[in-house]
Amino acid sequence: MCGVFGICGRLDAPGAGRSLSAAWLAYLGLFALQHRGQESAGIAVSAWNPPARAVGENEGERIRNRFARFRDVTVGGGILLRKEMGLVAEVFDRETLDQLPGSAAIGHVRYSTTGSSRRENAQPLLGITSYGPVAVAHNGNFVNASSLRRRLLSQGATFQTTTDTELVLALVSQSAAERLPEAVAQALQAVRGAYALVVLGEEASGQPVLIGCRDPHGLRPLVLGSRDDAYVLASETTALAAVGAAPVTELEPGQAAIITPAGVRIEDWFPPRRRAFCVFEYIYLARPDAELEGQSVHGVRQAIGRQLALEAPVAADVVIPAPDSGTSAALGYAQGSGIPFDLGLVKNRYVGRTFIQPDQADRELGVRIKLNPVSAVLAGKRVVVVDDSIVRGTTSRKTVALLREAGAREVHLVIASPPYRYPCFYGVDTTDEEKLIARKHSVEEIKELVGADSLHFLSLSGLIKAVRGVAAEEEKPEDAGLCTACFSGCYPTELTDEVRPAKDELERG
Amino acid sequence: MCGVFGICGRLDAPGAGRSLSAAWLAYLGLFALQHRGQESAGIAVSAWNPPARAVGENEGERIRNRFARFRDVTVGGGILLRKEMGLVAEVFDRETLDQLPGSAAIGHVRYSTTGSSRRENAQPLLGITSYGPVAVAHNGNFVNASSLRRRLLSQGATFQTTTDTELVLALVSQSAAERLPEAVAQALQAVRGAYALVVLGEEASGQPVLIGCRDPHGLRPLVLGSRDDAYVLASETTALAAVGAAPVTELEPGQAAIITPAGVRIEDWFPPRRRAFCVFEYIYLARPDAELEGQSVHGVRQAIGRQLALEAPVAADVVIPAPDSGTSAALGYAQGSGIPFDLGLVKNRYVGRTFIQPDQADRELGVRIKLNPVSAVLAGKRVVVVDDSIVRGTTSRKTVALLREAGAREVHLVIASPPYRYPCFYGVDTTDEEKLIARKHSVEEIKELVGADSLHFLSLSGLIKAVRGVAAEEEKPEDAGLCTACFSGCYPTELTDEVRPAKDELERG
Amino acid sequence: MCGVFGICGRLDAPGAGRSLSAAWLAYLGLFALQHRGQESAGIAVSAWNPPARAVGENEGERIRNRFARFRDVTVGGGILLRKEMGLVAEVFDRETLDQLPGSAAIGHVRYSTTGSSRRENAQPLLGITSYGPVAVAHNGNFVNASSLRRRLLSQGATFQTTTDTELVLALVSQSAAERLPEAVAQALQAVRGAYALVVLGEEASGQPVLIGCRDPHGLRPLVLGSRDDAYVLASETTALAAVGAAPVTELEPGQAAIITPAGVRIEDWFPPRRRAFCVFEYIYLARPDAELEGQSVHGVRQAIGRQLALEAPVAADVVIPAPDSGTSAALGYAQGSGIPFDLGLVKNRYVGRTFIQPDQADRELGVRIKLNPVSAVLAGKRVVVVDDSIVRGTTSRKTVALLREAGAREVHLVIASPPYRYPCFYGVDTTDEEKLIARKHSVEEIKELVGADSLHFLSLSGLIKAVRGVAAEEEKPEDAGLCTACFSGCYPTELTDEVRPAKDELERG
Amino acid sequence: MCGVFGICGRLDAPGAGRSLSAAWLAYLGLFALQHRGQESAGIAVSAWNPPARAVGENEGERIRNRFARFRDVTVGGGILLRKEMGLVAEVFDRETLDQLPGSAAIGHVRYSTTGSSRRENAQPLLGITSYGPVAVAHNGNFVNASSLRRRLLSQGATFQTTTDTELVLALVSQSAAERLPEAVAQALQAVRGAYALVVLGEEASGQPVLIGCRDPHGLRPLVLGSRDDAYVLASETTALAAVGAAPVTELEPGQAAIITPAGVRIEDWFPPRRRAFCVFEYIYLARPDAELEGQSVHGVRQAIGRQLALEAPVAADVVIPAPDSGTSAALGYAQGSGIPFDLGLVKNRYVGRTFIQPDQADRELGVRIKLNPVSAVLAGKRVVVVDDSIVRGTTSRKTVALLREAGAREVHLVIASPPYRYPCFYGVDTTDEEKLIARKHSVEEIKELVGADSLHFLSLSGLIKAVRGVAAEEEKPEDAGLCTACFSGCYPTELTDEVRPAKDELERG
Repeated sequence: MCGVFGICGRLDAPGAGRSLSAAWLAYLGLFALQHRGQESAGIAVSAWNPPARAVGENEGERIRNRFARFRDVTVGGGILLRKEMGLVAEVFDRETLDQLPGSAAIGHVRYSTTGSSRRENAQPLLGITSYGPVAVAHNGNFVNASSLRRRLLSQGATFQTTTDTELVLALVSQSAAERLPEAVAQALQAVRGAYALVVLGEEASGQPVLIGCRDPHGLRPLVLGSRDDAYVLASETTALAAVGAAPVTELEPGQAAIITPAGVRIEDWFPPRRRAFCVFEYIYLARPDAELEGQSVHGVRQAIGRQLALEAPVAADVVIPAPDSGTSAALGYAQGSGIPFDLGLVKNRYVGRTFIQPDQADRELGVRIKLNPVSAVLAGKRVVVVDDSIVRGTTSRKTVALLREAGAREVHLVIASPPYRYPCFYGVDTTDEEKLIARKHSVEEIKELVGADSLHFLSLSGLIKAVRGVAAEEEKPEDAGLCTACFSGCYPTELTDEVRPAKDELERG
Repeated sequence: MCGVFGICGRLDAPGAGRSLSAAWLAYLGLFALQHRGQESAGIAVSAWNPPARAVGENEGERIRNRFARFRDVTVGGGILLRKEMGLVAEVFDRETLDQLPGSAAIGHVRYSTTGSSRRENAQPLLGITSYGPVAVAHNGNFVNASSLRRRLLSQGATFQTTTDTELVLALVSQSAAERLPEAVAQALQAVRGAYALVVLGEEASGQPVLIGCRDPHGLRPLVLGSRDDAYVLASETTALAAVGAAPVTELEPGQAAIITPAGVRIEDWFPPRRRAFCVFEYIYLARPDAELEGQSVHGVRQAIGRQLALEAPVAADVVIPAPDSGTSAALGYAQGSGIPFDLGLVKNRYVGRTFIQPDQADRELGVRIKLNPVSAVLAGKRVVVVDDSIVRGTTSRKTVALLREAGAREVHLVIASPPYRYPCFYGVDTTDEEKLIARKHSVEEIKELVGADSLHFLSLSGLIKAVRGVAAEEEKPEDAGLCTACFSGCYPTELTDEVRPAKDELERG
Repeated sequence: MCGVFGICGRLDAPGAGRSLSAAWLAYLGLFALQHRGQESAGIAVSAWNPPARAVGENEGERIRNRFARFRDVTVGGGILLRKEMGLVAEVFDRETLDQLPGSAAIGHVRYSTTGSSRRENAQPLLGITSYGPVAVAHNGNFVNASSLRRRLLSQGATFQTTTDTELVLALVSQSAAERLPEAVAQALQAVRGAYALVVLGEEASGQPVLIGCRDPHGLRPLVLGSRDDAYVLASETTALAAVGAAPVTELEPGQAAIITPAGVRIEDWFPPRRRAFCVFEYIYLARPDAELEGQSVHGVRQAIGRQLALEAPVAADVVIPAPDSGTSAALGYAQGSGIPFDLGLVKNRYVGRTFIQPDQADRELGVRIKLNPVSAVLAGKRVVVVDDSIVRGTTSRKTVALLREAGAREVHLVIASPPYRYPCFYGVDTTDEEKLIARKHSVEEIKELVGADSLHFLSLSGLIKAVRGVAAEEEKPEDAGLCTACFSGCYPTELTDEVRPAKDELERG
Repeated sequence: MCGVFGICGRLDAPGAGRSLSAAWLAYLGLFALQHRGQESAGIAVSAWNPPARAVGENEGERIRNRFARFRDVTVGGGILLRKEMGLVAEVFDRETLDQLPGSAAIGHVRYSTTGSSRRENAQPLLGITSYGPVAVAHNGNFVNASSLRRRLLSQGATFQTTTDTELVLALVSQSAAERLPEAVAQALQAVRGAYALVVLGEEASGQPVLIGCRDPHGLRPLVLGSRDDAYVLASETTALAAVGAAPVTELEPGQAAIITPAGVRIEDWFPPRRRAFCVFEYIYLARPDAELEGQSVHGVRQAIGRQLALEAPVAADVVIPAPDSGTSAALGYAQGSGIPFDLGLVKNRYVGRTFIQPDQADRELGVRIKLNPVSAVLAGKRVVVVDDSIVRGTTSRKTVALLREAGAREVHLVIASPPYRYPCFYGVDTTDEEKLIARKHSVEEIKELVGADSLHFLSLSGLIKAVRGVAAEEEKPEDAGLCTACFSGCYPTELTDEVRPAKDELERG
């Protein structure tokens, strides 16, 4: 549950009339990925054209003063980095973006999965390696991070963070390969797990090199686009559109793209393994206007809603979405069932990360602020409310209570996915299985716990059918090329490391 | 286009188990009013129970040190104020709320109409008057502000801001009435225009007194609610719900509510004039889950959509809302026309006040960040897009272009209000009539300017019918109790002051 | 214990090659006055040349947008103000100074005497009056502030602060005079007490006018200087030097200077009363390199030290100053006595306003950080330590203890002023007479309390002799033209208002 | 030109009644060392007693949340770090100190010598090594940093900074020693140059271990003190006094102190080499109240002044110090010559790092703000001004001009050290020899350049005599146990690395 972005190329193409720096484009791209992580944000750039020498400056001073006025960024060789806790809009302003010059950048928005939620664990990470300065940003999770880190420490490495991502820097610096791209390829031989990775470095000439690659199972998405004489990498197509880039291709599992100002080169770094694209991207993670594997996310969610109308018909007066993630499926359910669609809950757009929950007794007021029932739609009605999933169950309980309080006669909860029973070790923060309500409780029990009149989950086969089409109905998940581990318990990778890697694994050492 | 809030009473009612201070409740209430103004926010409290004397402090020190550790608020006698530019969530945090003790508060969110957009013009305003410290917050606009200010200056008043609201403080201090409520009543005799006003003061005993009142035409809304032993005033019912208060009544035009810890008293301060409630509150200003004059705003907007389906039938494949304000009307249009409703445009929830527009050539990218078309819904389709109103026309032009770019075959623009032709002098920032596109252009010309295949506005009579019901169809606006000046040019008040009061009027002096 | 500064004129004189704005010069001037007040700092400018109209802006927008990008200043008509708690260096940076354009400014550094220590009481104060926007800054204290404020409130005035200074704005706005300078003169007829005042306004033409004046007794200093085509007002000559201005004259008691871009005009506003210049300016307040009444402050202090050597001979090995204010007098004492001068205490230059005292048990460590004994100078020696005055006695006690701990065999405390027995109502924060150690204790008792081997104060006649020369030895203080009230109890003004005006007087109302 | 501090032990000794944390004591200690570096400040602590488990927290959450509320510090295992650009008072406040719990800490104030002046280069540095988290702070300079770094990179190390100090972390992690102290000893075998180093780590038990050591030549000072059951390390004795610690011993060249809660152990890590204590510590770097090698710094500087009076007698009326560093020597010169000592220049105590120089034409005003002549002392006089040293000559030129402007008849410049001709590679920022005025110019030429009537430097033998006493007069510097390289060009270490290591060396890679 992170988003990555990368751009490299000639941004000042003659006649293009477009003059934004790579950092500005990364800023726009990260806005389009913000839904994938709201904890921290960061951008690293390769500033390989240093500012001209000031009059009276000697060479030594020139190098030392090179980025002297850039007080808000971290400098490692020619790579400059800014990362902070907070939203993209909070981390960057005109002043900080102007401290990130150059035509190659990577960016990251984070929702922590490995490593605690602290500034030092925010990404991109930057280090000076035997290949010069290297920055790296990562969506996913390494399942063998703990043993790998112990090995590297015993070999004399030092670390600054508790992220699995930092292992890439150490592995790269240890590599004997001649150039950075090969060093990254070598480094990734040692890691197991899920990753869509972007790496920014500098060649011996000082020119930037941007590398993107996907793990051999293709668990996390990564798309390639182009914009004039530059190439762009991003977690979702939405970020390509945000910078005015046209989609070129989705990277295949195990593939890498190496981008320099001279162009792009696609390489196969890993032999093909079972394709296992995260189905939760379709259900919740991706934005409805994104396309994954060539399909509209909104379209898939509508199909899920229609499938639900078949699997779970309910006698009701109105279908409403749980805002905002249930909207597409609710429209599908309304279409499939013929029950009218309406807006029964309004979300307060101004309640964000910084809203302060009142203490104690008045905490219930906090809920009223975030979600507001439209009584005219609900009063006296039998209501179907469609939500994307139930993980812990707390939100569903509050939603049902709110609807009843606003006068709903019956509340039927329809969920656009199967029960979430197994922890995800590939980048969604559900490693603590104790907290998964469906791990311990039957559907009937959950219904009671959340207080609904009825509760319906989508079937796994129904999900696969909605994603892959009718022909896939009887397919096993493995054959559908999807990772459904959170619903089925069937993990595509061996869980080699301490069986159950935990988010806090690296904090202990 | 501002929101006001007030609360006063016994918040520590025995057995109530609710312990929030008045400032905390105002904070929650302002969140529910944030859509009415995002420019600045402020809360003033009456802290009439000063902190106990510290050991070794003499009386003089005690008074001087009373609020010494409250560095983030302004102190005027026993009233403490915090106001800053920005959203409620940006202006207040736990630390600042804890510097606003006490059980009586007023709050304000501002979208500037009179007075430039600066911190000093943010509200509430606070001054020490002949009645002790007084704070005031205001939704609306005085149309005789300029002449009133000149008169007061010539009488020796001094001012700190360029708002019309500050006139209330000066008029109050000049009053010869015995107590604050009567002084406010006297002061308001001198002003003409639109106002929903909340005033916070202290009685001779040190106890707080909260006063709310509406102008004689009732142009701006103000509702009264109750919560245990406290009473609440707010621009919309949504803010009552936010603090767990039950609605008591809407203040009538010309009415005032005087609230002390002992209870509430309703008074008629002005003889009845023609009722003229702002119809634009129904169309755009209020939140869909609010109730105005006893009616659901969402319901009225749906009725408007259905009326539009009658007035402006279009042959199309899909109806989509312009997010977010067109949603209710679009649902009504889809219901009325039988054309399927879908989501064709997704709004980026993270693009707010602090998003930085790229410069120049790449500005177009900014639009792509804010609004994202869902191609699967639009490609090859004849699209009806429903929006609430067209003021300047720039947004509509961009929306139409975006839809075409995403593959829409035809784009039909349906507007849930009549053409906006006349400036509003009552609190909506459209005083510069040069910028109203419908002032200078015919519907046909506007259609060309925004690039739509067809363009349809709601009729004035259709609007009245949707708001007041079928019986009202043939009514004159005046008889319907609505102000429709922005559409009809028929203003409920004389425009006594320099004929055309302007937002910058008071900046000149 | 405040400092004031003012400048007005043509700063862009051809050929002068000097291009600083008035605010920049005020910034430099306030640095030279910082020792007079470290609590808050502020600068107000008259920006009567508004920025040129931007393309496409209409007149209304132009006025409203005039200072739109100046987010860190307060705007009142054409006068812009920035004031904050803290040192000059903390309140101003390049960005804020650049938001204060124009060629007329006043500035202030504050140590609170009336009004609590809060941002809203920082100066200059700014209000819009019947003469347009007016800013005012004040060194001194009005002794009839309380009754004056009650009168103005009953006449309908409103106030924003609890300072006596704000009364000037209200009195000015009430004046019937034709132009601002006369209005200020009228206003000051109503006030009693001590003041060196600078007032900044705008004439009907929009041109700035700067007014400076001293109270009829001349209690507080105010000097006039010139710099190219501009005139400068300041509390001390040091601030003239800081901006490259040459001294012109000291304003006489009751005199005013009216400065416009066209030049300066000196007027006598009050009939002559008994001259009573604050003798504590010589002893402590002014900087040693300043000149007061034509005399070097360092020179007067050396003379005081020599006088002490006559009055209070001590058998000792070394004379050391209490840093930093005792240095000049200690040099004089060493010269007069023949005992060698040395540095026995070093002050830590980095311990300032923001140093955090450790709590409780370890508080003693705080003292060790601030003041450091040089053991090599002190060990085994009979030490004379010279300090400027003893007010509460706490510092002296700590100093003596520190010297003994460092090995001093005897510690003789010699004080460069008489016992401080009476509260000052003219701008030094000693209104709480309970805390004056010499009010309640004899010299012998104080000696015991501070732990010295001997303690010697200067005689009042010795003080007058050192300040006015040998001829003055037998003069009565009144005849010497000095206010010695804090030593003699002989106050130059009637204390008309509640007999004992207190710093917190205005907080109560 | 940096200061280091370390403390470890039992701070809560029963009966001691002293409860400050190690970070608070480090804060106080750094205040006493602030004169050694004003660029950045930092403190690292070992928080080996993690906060207790909150109710309902599982073990994983507990570890991850351990320091969750400590938003202003960096976490590496159990070591917490805060470092920022700025003065100690700017970097730390009560809130940040409270985020640094525990009873072991190291601290640093920096004036950059290797590595550019940026936050990432501020110290202490913190990394997770094969010995767990380790923090390190350093006064001095490694002369073989560049080749060492190249070697470590080729072995697979990664770096985050461009300081030589970070090499220690990499060398430690590579060590095969069993425990941290031996690993540090092994690491230092690889480095050449000057260092007083403090290292903070955690033993396997989680208990803290603090290590301090001096290079084999003893170029930089490091003293050991004790306070109840804790031990303290600091660059100067002044910092011991600041935390209430008694001096125990100065570490000998090549010695190390290993401190745990159980006590201290002194070890000899290097065979004895030629002792070469930096003579510039006596002349300028150390505070006058410090003791170095058992001698009072103030006393040595007075002896230098007396020696100058012998070597460079001048016919003059008054001796004044260049504030503040010339004061002790000026007193000595006055004593030796019989010419009266006086204060001719007053330094503005409020002009610090944040003072903004006016641009261009008015820059000269900046000088007037910082330094103020006392005309009464100077006018018409023949003035001897005593300064500690001349490095670039720019300050001297301004001082002389200022004195003449204030009326001095003659200005004689007397310098308390020999001409500064050779760059220092051991921690004083004079590596750019092009800028050393005495490198290129004779004494006569310098006199002309600074505009003095006469100019006198101390002789090298006179300096040694003043430091070591009469018997040393004919000694060679080597025999006196001093490093005088900056005056004599005689460097105690081989300059093995690229002959002339430069401050910017590591920026290039």
